[in-house]
Amino acid sequence: MDTLENLIKEKITSIPDFPKKGIIFRDVTTLIEDKEAFGAVISAIAWNYRKSGTVFDKVAGPEARGFIVGAPVAYALNAGLVLVRKPGKLPREVYSESYDLEYGSASIEIHRDSIKPGEHVLLADDLIATGGTAEAAVKLIRKAGGIVDHAVFLINLPDLGGVERLKNLGVESLTLASYTGA
Amino acid sequence: MDTLENLIKEKITSIPDFPKKGIIFRDVTTLIEDKEAFGAVISAIAWNYRKSGTVFDKVAGPEARGFIVGAPVAYALNAGLVLVRKPGKLPREVYSESYDLEYGSASIEIHRDSIKPGEHVLLADDLIATGGTAEAAVKLIRKAGGIVDHAVFLINLPDLGGVERLKNLGVESLTLASYTGA
Repeated sequence: MDTLENLIKEKITSIPDFPKKGIIFRDVTTLIEDKEAFGAVISAIAWNYRKSGTVFDKVAGPEARGFIVGAPVAYALNAGLVLVRKPGKLPREVYSESYDLEYGSASIEIHRDSIKPGEHVLLADDLIATGGTAEAAVKLIRKAGGIVDHAVFLINLPDLGGVERLKNLGVESLTLASYTGA
Repeated sequence: MDTLENLIKEKITSIPDFPKKGIIFRDVTTLIEDKEAFGAVISAIAWNYRKSGTVFDKVAGPEARGFIVGAPVAYALNAGLVLVRKPGKLPREVYSESYDLEYGSASIEIHRDSIKPGEHVLLADDLIATGGTAEAAVKLIRKAGGIVDHAVFLINLPDLGGVERLKNLGVESLTLASYTGA
């Protein structure tokens, strides 16, 4: 998908020193605001799984930017959408999983009944960096009884090694970008 | 859309006393997890605007549940997606708008360049209660130069009068639910 990768590279905006000095923030808002680019990216993700006959019962997206990718991909694949949320946002019984951040830790939650045992779940997010959130989300999906063999991200920052933490999954990412350089 | 309204009513979960005593929380997660229900709802929203010839350049969704509705509706309508986010989340220059909560206030932001002057924008969220967020989002869209004549919500809580705060807009909501009762 070379042309699509170039489209994404052209449409994302790189913000130096956000949220802090030395980090280049990869901003997908300029991509998703563009109707042709947004439509092409979501359709390409759906088409990729359809052509290989990979069927998902559900797509799981971590709050909040994971919803931006997960919700339309779920719609395009005729799958249900499962929310992976920050603590205290989900009103019913949850599974919770903590993961390390550069300083301290965070946790995410999933409704216990959001996935039926044996359902196939695609993990979707806008970006994979260190993979901490993605790894925690995979654990939550499995706790809830789901089978998760695939993950998709618009952007992969390979310098941070996130994909290696998902090494038993098929990981698709539409573009590669460096953490600290262009 | 009577049948669809019944489907939504059946699929949403009502949680008494969440997030606090006396409030019935309307939980859409059980709706969106159901692939047929999720697909039907998004398709119905898109079809409603298509059949009336109402065209949008962009769909704006307030963080975080607005992304769940806004992103697939934008995809289905071949529109761009504009994020309305909590403070500090958007990396470039923003417009900001405050609104009152029951105790204190909150604010939301939009990228200044997220909408081109004269673009038609649909506001989308999962639920309208008091309408504070929706009203602030409309102001932000207009500050950015957008034209906003329509808003869509899966659930309207008419007891709280939110739709009246959007009285110059065409407001669509797929189901009605009371704030404190079934």
